[in-house]
Amino acid sequence: MSLVCVQNFSISLDGFGTGEGTSREAPFGHAGERLHEWMFETRWWREKSAEAGGSAGVDDAFVRQHDIGIGAEIMGAGKFGYPGWHGNGDWKGWWGANPPFHTPVFVLTQHVRPPIEMEGGTTYHFVDAPPAEALEMARHAANGQNVRIGGGATVIRDFLAEGLIDHAHIAVTPMLLGRGARLWDGLEALEQTYAIEAVSAPSGVTHLTLLRRAG
Amino acid sequence: MSLVCVQNFSISLDGFGTGEGTSREAPFGHAGERLHEWMFETRWWREKSAEAGGSAGVDDAFVRQHDIGIGAEIMGAGKFGYPGWHGNGDWKGWWGANPPFHTPVFVLTQHVRPPIEMEGGTTYHFVDAPPAEALEMARHAANGQNVRIGGGATVIRDFLAEGLIDHAHIAVTPMLLGRGARLWDGLEALEQTYAIEAVSAPSGVTHLTLLRRAG
Repeated sequence: MSLVCVQNFSISLDGFGTGEGTSREAPFGHAGERLHEWMFETRWWREKSAEAGGSAGVDDAFVRQHDIGIGAEIMGAGKFGYPGWHGNGDWKGWWGANPPFHTPVFVLTQHVRPPIEMEGGTTYHFVDAPPAEALEMARHAANGQNVRIGGGATVIRDFLAEGLIDHAHIAVTPMLLGRGARLWDGLEALEQTYAIEAVSAPSGVTHLTLLRRAG
Repeated sequence: MSLVCVQNFSISLDGFGTGEGTSREAPFGHAGERLHEWMFETRWWREKSAEAGGSAGVDDAFVRQHDIGIGAEIMGAGKFGYPGWHGNGDWKGWWGANPPFHTPVFVLTQHVRPPIEMEGGTTYHFVDAPPAEALEMARHAANGQNVRIGGGATVIRDFLAEGLIDHAHIAVTPMLLGRGARLWDGLEALEQTYAIEAVSAPSGVTHLTLLRRAG
């Protein structure tokens, strides 16, 4: 059975998944890379950068799931590009010539354009559709494999609010961003539809796992 | 050296320390007792209720610190009474005839009244003062012991914002309240002044410890 997953989505203690003031120079706004530093310290990340070392504990176990069994991703316009990217016909995303997705990627945007095929198996499709409809396209493209909901915060929130996510891994980092895009807004009583597990890592990150309750 | 502490202050994953709609019938508003259920399951709580059983792990270790070395407490008006208690001359607080504080307690309120002496060592003092000034009174009353900042969320936030707290224990419970009084607002970059440790308990609660950095 194909699942809809969130993986390695990092937020601050006060619930922000992105800082304020995102731009071409600052993809995460005033947050910078701080929300994601725990990932850079893992063996998985080092291997991808052809480096030795890195942690091999719970942080590494979680990040490694990124590569397993995913057949498509859905992402918000802000994960694809800076505010205003749609005015730039040459923009091909933040993620380089060989993006780390290696699957079809559905970018939710009001500014649709023809698909862009990248190296390594990633093809960006631009869709102006509500969550359930975008998910139907992604499921079809995933061909029986899982669909990753890649963020940002507002996209994950929208999919959670509609009960479209089966399994979510959220990494809570020990810092207070104070401003930006909040993940948890409008999700009152989410614990009634999702079982929530928490485990803290020596890095200081607390890994939350949300698993949709049966029935 | 006398310290200023927060103990066992429970919040939801989305950062609320109290729900919306607090009243005489609903001290925590729509949150009810849910934020505090993890405490009721500890051996410490059961002992106080002269009951057997209860957990003896990390939850119990944290709650037990409540009774140790505290010489005074500062609390907000909402921890003393329901909205409008100041119009009720007979009101002596939520906490019964023998409150669990057993020290002088400074209630921050614009509606001052004469002190109320309760059984068991608790005396309520009503003060209309900014955080630093109230702390000076409480320190004096604590006579060399520690001062507890008892909450609610806005009181703890105000004392944190002014850097008046040495050590805080916050218990994050796996639920989303969606609305109420937020703890973390306006505390951007708190991790620069406080080292933050997180440890998750089998109960599902994640215990955060904030310790003011030296210097």
